[in-house]
Amino acid sequence: MSSLSYAIIGTGAIGGYYGARLQQAGCEVHFLLRGDYEAVRHSGIAIESIDGDFELPQVKAYSQSTDIPPVDVAIVALKTTQNNHLHTLLPPIKKGGAILSLQNGLGIEADISRQLKGQLKEREGTVPDILGGLCFICSNRIGPGHFRHSAYGRILLGAHNPTAQPCTPTPLMGAIAADFAKGPIAIETTDDLPMARWQKLVWNVPYSGLSVVLDATTEEMMADSGVQSLITTLMAEVINTANAWGEQTSPGTNRHLPFSLIDEMIAHTEVIEPYRTSMKIDYDENRPLEVETIVGNPLRAAQAMGVSVPTMTMLYQQLSFLNNR
Amino acid sequence: MSSLSYAIIGTGAIGGYYGARLQQAGCEVHFLLRGDYEAVRHSGIAIESIDGDFELPQVKAYSQSTDIPPVDVAIVALKTTQNNHLHTLLPPIKKGGAILSLQNGLGIEADISRQLKGQLKEREGTVPDILGGLCFICSNRIGPGHFRHSAYGRILLGAHNPTAQPCTPTPLMGAIAADFAKGPIAIETTDDLPMARWQKLVWNVPYSGLSVVLDATTEEMMADSGVQSLITTLMAEVINTANAWGEQTSPGTNRHLPFSLIDEMIAHTEVIEPYRTSMKIDYDENRPLEVETIVGNPLRAAQAMGVSVPTMTMLYQQLSFLNNR
Repeated sequence: MSSLSYAIIGTGAIGGYYGARLQQAGCEVHFLLRGDYEAVRHSGIAIESIDGDFELPQVKAYSQSTDIPPVDVAIVALKTTQNNHLHTLLPPIKKGGAILSLQNGLGIEADISRQLKGQLKEREGTVPDILGGLCFICSNRIGPGHFRHSAYGRILLGAHNPTAQPCTPTPLMGAIAADFAKGPIAIETTDDLPMARWQKLVWNVPYSGLSVVLDATTEEMMADSGVQSLITTLMAEVINTANAWGEQTSPGTNRHLPFSLIDEMIAHTEVIEPYRTSMKIDYDENRPLEVETIVGNPLRAAQAMGVSVPTMTMLYQQLSFLNNR
Repeated sequence: MSSLSYAIIGTGAIGGYYGARLQQAGCEVHFLLRGDYEAVRHSGIAIESIDGDFELPQVKAYSQSTDIPPVDVAIVALKTTQNNHLHTLLPPIKKGGAILSLQNGLGIEADISRQLKGQLKEREGTVPDILGGLCFICSNRIGPGHFRHSAYGRILLGAHNPTAQPCTPTPLMGAIAADFAKGPIAIETTDDLPMARWQKLVWNVPYSGLSVVLDATTEEMMADSGVQSLITTLMAEVINTANAWGEQTSPGTNRHLPFSLIDEMIAHTEVIEPYRTSMKIDYDENRPLEVETIVGNPLRAAQAMGVSVPTMTMLYQQLSFLNNR
């Protein structure tokens, strides 16, 4: 099977690493950049990775999306705080192609879908599939075109369904997964992208949020019994909200997350290397925080369904304050 | 009426200012100091005050309480984090005398009472009255023996009652109030010290706590609608707890705080000068925080009575983490 062509919209810690892996696997990859454009155009991309270092001295670099030729898959790896500009950043997408968001949080695919519908005419009636990929990875940008992949790397791939129901993976998703697997990237598909996003939020809401408010690494938080207790409370609120959402969208189907996730995630976080969350890195580097997709959207879902989430509410209020300052 | 004699246990921002006012008013005042002992013994105390600057070139300074002669009133103005050492810091107190805590928070008088009971034998059966004074003041130490009083200054004086019931002011309290009034310090007495302490906590829990967690002045907090909403929630939790306590200790007597306090306190805080709370000053200067008396004791009272206080719980967990680090 011949590989697909890709555009990487946002060549940062996530887009830079996975895009480089796809190019290394033989795919045609187009990288959209801003500040690092000149450096990457001249010197390419260098990856330090626990799975082996490599360099791509030549990559197809672009400073504006209108220069990118039509591709099969546009991979969105911007911070979600920039998603409101997405309609100006997407390249042409071939018929039958897709947009794949490798971003964190909730409501991302629906937001992309809304932006595309507004553009329907310019796109000549072709609306690409919208996919989401959850990245379980520690990757950082350490210089222009220079990325360090320090742990994990798995992707969980699912499709956006406007009806919010589970849906089986499409052939295109299989082809995308095959390209990543050549990377080699561990990649799986899921029937239920929304619940997978909720499950990732069970970790992300407490650890990302509190790492900023408490100015702390995962290790420092885990060493404090009071913070552990707070993390447990926040996780339970996320699970309660996810399960209310599952019951509302698919009544009686037992579409839910088990509360055993709490102990599993806490035990897992206790043994991983001390970890600075991406939200904390954004905060330390004075970048806007992904508060709305990671905490705001789950919170508003809870409020709309009448789920009691007092600690998530307080976390959102605190993060919004710190983000606005 | 001749004035009383006083010992100031902890000559900091509060003890230094009020002790100097009492000496200026003609009272006999003994100042217990630690780090500033030599400086104050040689150069006395200097006060910059919105009510007029003054200097006391000579004060009775002590580095240990055993050198202090018996006094009528021992004024405790330590940080409450040091109260566990109080039994070694109190001077002899004359028969019929009192201990007056000018400290913030809940459970302070009961804690002092417990410590004194443990000492009953050494004190030859004389247990002094225990009083509490709530200080509404902005005062800071700006150098050894040098204090700046920048706003307010009022004291609300009440007696500790082991039965937790309201009690009418004693003649001794009247004499103390008369000495302060000569200061001149605005001073009033209250029948209900515990409810006065709860009322002060309605302000202190949110503003002191969040000023540390959010690294913010009162002005910065008031400018953010989300934080204002969080402050409102915290205030309501404190009032709910206070009212449950009032009902538990004095059933059917309507011993409660009105919820209108919330709007009053927020409106008041909006118009005062930008203010760094004393807990924030402690945090910035790497001193232990008064987390237990200001947030921990109200929280434990709520838990013991089954009052739902999720945001106070989260605030306590966050402050404890920051305090322990």
